[in-house]
Amino acid sequence: MKNVLIGQSGGPSAVINASLAGAVRAARQSKAVGRVYGALNGIEGFLQRRVVDLGAQLPAEEALARLCATPAMALGSCRRKLPAPPHEVYGQILALFKEYNIGYFFYIGGNDSMDTVDKIAAFLAAQGEEIRCIGIPKTIDNDLAETDHTPGFGSAANFIANTMAQIICDSSVYNRPSATIVEIMGRNAGWLTAAAALAGEKSGGQGPHLVFLPEVSFGVEAFLQKVRAEQAKHQNVVVAVSEGVRTAEGAYVGEMQGSAQDDFGHGTLGGVGQVLENLVREKIGCKVRGINLNVLQRAAGHFASATDLAEAEAVGAEGVRLALAGETGKMVAIRRVSNSPYAVEYTGVEVSRVANKERKVPLEWIGEAAVLPPLLAYLRPLMVDLPALPRCGYFYVDRQRLVQP
Amino acid sequence: MKNVLIGQSGGPSAVINASLAGAVRAARQSKAVGRVYGALNGIEGFLQRRVVDLGAQLPAEEALARLCATPAMALGSCRRKLPAPPHEVYGQILALFKEYNIGYFFYIGGNDSMDTVDKIAAFLAAQGEEIRCIGIPKTIDNDLAETDHTPGFGSAANFIANTMAQIICDSSVYNRPSATIVEIMGRNAGWLTAAAALAGEKSGGQGPHLVFLPEVSFGVEAFLQKVRAEQAKHQNVVVAVSEGVRTAEGAYVGEMQGSAQDDFGHGTLGGVGQVLENLVREKIGCKVRGINLNVLQRAAGHFASATDLAEAEAVGAEGVRLALAGETGKMVAIRRVSNSPYAVEYTGVEVSRVANKERKVPLEWIGEAAVLPPLLAYLRPLMVDLPALPRCGYFYVDRQRLVQP
Repeated sequence: MKNVLIGQSGGPSAVINASLAGAVRAARQSKAVGRVYGALNGIEGFLQRRVVDLGAQLPAEEALARLCATPAMALGSCRRKLPAPPHEVYGQILALFKEYNIGYFFYIGGNDSMDTVDKIAAFLAAQGEEIRCIGIPKTIDNDLAETDHTPGFGSAANFIANTMAQIICDSSVYNRPSATIVEIMGRNAGWLTAAAALAGEKSGGQGPHLVFLPEVSFGVEAFLQKVRAEQAKHQNVVVAVSEGVRTAEGAYVGEMQGSAQDDFGHGTLGGVGQVLENLVREKIGCKVRGINLNVLQRAAGHFASATDLAEAEAVGAEGVRLALAGETGKMVAIRRVSNSPYAVEYTGVEVSRVANKERKVPLEWIGEAAVLPPLLAYLRPLMVDLPALPRCGYFYVDRQRLVQP
Repeated sequence: MKNVLIGQSGGPSAVINASLAGAVRAARQSKAVGRVYGALNGIEGFLQRRVVDLGAQLPAEEALARLCATPAMALGSCRRKLPAPPHEVYGQILALFKEYNIGYFFYIGGNDSMDTVDKIAAFLAAQGEEIRCIGIPKTIDNDLAETDHTPGFGSAANFIANTMAQIICDSSVYNRPSATIVEIMGRNAGWLTAAAALAGEKSGGQGPHLVFLPEVSFGVEAFLQKVRAEQAKHQNVVVAVSEGVRTAEGAYVGEMQGSAQDDFGHGTLGGVGQVLENLVREKIGCKVRGINLNVLQRAAGHFASATDLAEAEAVGAEGVRLALAGETGKMVAIRRVSNSPYAVEYTGVEVSRVANKERKVPLEWIGEAAVLPPLLAYLRPLMVDLPALPRCGYFYVDRQRLVQP
């Protein structure tokens, strides 16, 4: 009887712990599985033998339920990218797998984490080892290939739309022209920024007036013209902009600096929201405010999407099912079977087809500083408010310890 | 039978609309009151005859209930400060009061708004007019004199503590030293920044490691030393800092600029969070992130405090009671009768004692980059999570119209 090892890697999300809980539950239900271990701080911590027995640490269903409602990463994360094989680290990993009698390795993360799964699975297969490696998808950016969407995205998207509705409401209280520029995560893929467009539906009111995704090049003059035009119509203009928008020449707008004399205002380092705030102040001269939603986007458990929470748990359980069925080198993917009523099914895809790839927003779903109806239809079922604010504490790693609320 | 006029002024909060709803309900219940008017965009809009009939616009209790759960300001706001009397504007206001047959004027706002109430009440009294003017307190900053606390504060404080818990959890996932610096509103009074200290209680986990209020002067070297010391203990250090911290010389830290060669990093304009982020990056060299909670602090209806919501509504109703009892030139104040169990009573105080004053955090409640137990005891009953996430739309003003969800 072999043991299970689970790790988390990459950036936090509101629901990655639900994937952990789903995997732990499914592993416990199997008679083929012995102990369920957690690697603290991913593959990096595993290489340092920083391993906890999740059976002992999360003994009761009650602890798993709390874990599901807890944002960020209970086991901690790492950003360690494994070197190209051959490399001694793979021998070390295999030796540790044998030491802990691991038969099943699950890694919850994004495309860098899938690279780790891919490399370890390929190494083990080449060695003739029967240790199964399965990737469990997670990224708020929604940019993994071979899956309709990724767990973590819907909750971040739901936070963004709800928060954008609050910002729009706040921005409208004064009877004078203003611009509010909201910077949203997603350096290369505009899925999260697009989600801001649903603020109006969340609030029964207005949505942002302009939405700029990184898939389309950003023109500074065109931006100023659009702000002026919207201001003439609505007075208080709200803009959603991806942190990763670039000019036609490929320069990140958020990294532009300049003097008071040039197009980009005073020397700025605060990202695209700050750069555009300075630009509007200088060129339009209205009241202007840049807002960076920052890590709140990925940590806001209270705005977790009901769809996302359920799917995050399901991909964890599905990963265990795939491994027990003998699969390895696969990632659990979500296939959307129907949009209305919304229905999905889970499949295993080759993790090598996911690793190091990015899935961007299709250009035909993007309008002129706007999000087109097919993209809104894609987004809606993924962003479903929970019936009640989750009441939970927070799990975190303190060196060798998994600290619980 | 005289009519009622209600206006909102100053910055938005999560519960100022509950004060509006409380006043509307109480006015409707009185047989002495005719119509209930709302001034759009405060006294400024009133001077432009931008007035709506709230009886027609919010006819049903259901609309008032939704209003209570809606952040920002349904009637819109203004920042208009009335000139010192004598001035023709007072005659204009009186003429408009007569045109609309106003007998009772309620103004919901902070200390600038109380200045407006004070001046209009004094003018009307000097003219021998029997129009009653009552201030209804509102400010997230909690800096109004003559009241234990202000409606709006508890909800912003509750958002800050809950969000800080999420940020702390997010900041702890990587196993390497980091600093996260969270900038919080409150330029001269540190009440909101102090509320961050309750993040640990909200999460069952850690609170911020360092808390800097504007009442105490901020030393750059001492700050760096404290970050280094906390990092040695906790690795991932989280700092709560007021936007208004100043050096011993009185300079706002958030306005400091410099070159790569000096103490404050590259020329920065992003406020104290950005300045300290650059400083830590340069002087300590660890992973560092500045986060500005921005207007989310005052717009986050989902984290409204149950205490705050109930009190905001009560001060609205209490204002109407005072006016109907013949009072004028008063502000509704909250007196804390008991802390455990928490109980308050409402009184009227001279609005002239509130106007243009600021109530800061007592120095004996502030520790060394920390909040002392008496301040925590003061804060706790004001920051009570609602049992469920409010589901509401957003009200806003579109020129002459109050738009409803």
